[in-house]
Amino acid sequence: MSKIVSVSLDGIAGGRNEEEFWPVHSAVLGWLFDLASWRALQGMDGGRDGVDSRLWQVQFEQFGAQVVGRSMFDYGVEAWGETPPFHAPVLTNTTRTGEPIEKLGGTSYTFITDGIEAAVAAAREAAGDADVLIAGGIRTAQLALRAGVVDELALHVAPVVLQAGARLLDGEATGELQLRCTEAVPGEGAVHLRYDVLR
Amino acid sequence: MSKIVSVSLDGIAGGRNEEEFWPVHSAVLGWLFDLASWRALQGMDGGRDGVDSRLWQVQFEQFGAQVVGRSMFDYGVEAWGETPPFHAPVLTNTTRTGEPIEKLGGTSYTFITDGIEAAVAAAREAAGDADVLIAGGIRTAQLALRAGVVDELALHVAPVVLQAGARLLDGEATGELQLRCTEAVPGEGAVHLRYDVLR
Repeated sequence: MSKIVSVSLDGIAGGRNEEEFWPVHSAVLGWLFDLASWRALQGMDGGRDGVDSRLWQVQFEQFGAQVVGRSMFDYGVEAWGETPPFHAPVLTNTTRTGEPIEKLGGTSYTFITDGIEAAVAAAREAAGDADVLIAGGIRTAQLALRAGVVDELALHVAPVVLQAGARLLDGEATGELQLRCTEAVPGEGAVHLRYDVLR
Repeated sequence: MSKIVSVSLDGIAGGRNEEEFWPVHSAVLGWLFDLASWRALQGMDGGRDGVDSRLWQVQFEQFGAQVVGRSMFDYGVEAWGETPPFHAPVLTNTTRTGEPIEKLGGTSYTFITDGIEAAVAAAREAAGDADVLIAGGIRTAQLALRAGVVDELALHVAPVVLQAGARLLDGEATGELQLRCTEAVPGEGAVHLRYDVLR
């Protein structure tokens, strides 16, 4: 059960409101958008190859299912289109139920209304022997961290300093965390850190 | 002209007041206190050897002079004792002048009252061919970053999440920064990152 997140050097991972969303999103994920491996997941040719691209590909391929929150789902579902970049079952943690939706390329959307632990359990079952990714957003990741169901945290640290935004690692939201770094790789556009969550 | 700083995973480097000082200081610098190389700088035997200790020693040895702010000086001067851990000239950026002070082991304290750029210039002269370290505190580091006199930033990221404290990388205090990661090393107690400051 892993969580991948891109953060600024001052730990900001997203916007606190709609106005902040795009400036923060583009600053902390700027390293990702143009990668060859990320473009390939969306069916696009070209893009930048190198450390960032290869590391992202290896990291992403380990996931057999993903968990997202309702806000991320509502925000993204149109943009993700008919062949979404997940290529795996996506379990949406939500209070609003709905019929499962099948997309092309291996992506399906299922709605789980019994809380984050139930969403993660459903994802584990869907993933089989593969790993599960908590894809976001921030509040869903914080819920999962607080619930103790995340055993690895992959932080992609973009070399930018933002003045305002929402922090993923916020003691009040996540509870106390004990982490141990297992990998640190400097890429072209971000530093890639992996932490075991020990708690 | 370098700046070394220890931060939490959420970017906190120090306290905003006296009450926060020790909890933050001990959390973000916990990885350092017991290192063999850090103990040796203070004339003490023993301590923990390994990646953290060797990296700290190599990093610290490159500095021929250090710059501190008045608050750090006032706070630390007694604790640093007669053989301070700097083993180099220390230039204090201050509005309050004073006579130079000689200590044992190569440390001297000189007071510069013409601003951070003058303090850095004096340190460069004192350092000769060696590098200069902006040793702290946070406000002095922010002044130096804003003044554009820092060309490398060494971040030691401790695997802790703090709820409250002062951030070094605060856009309002430092101005906009362009950084490029040149090194990322996972140690036993912290991840060690180096960034070139491109601006």
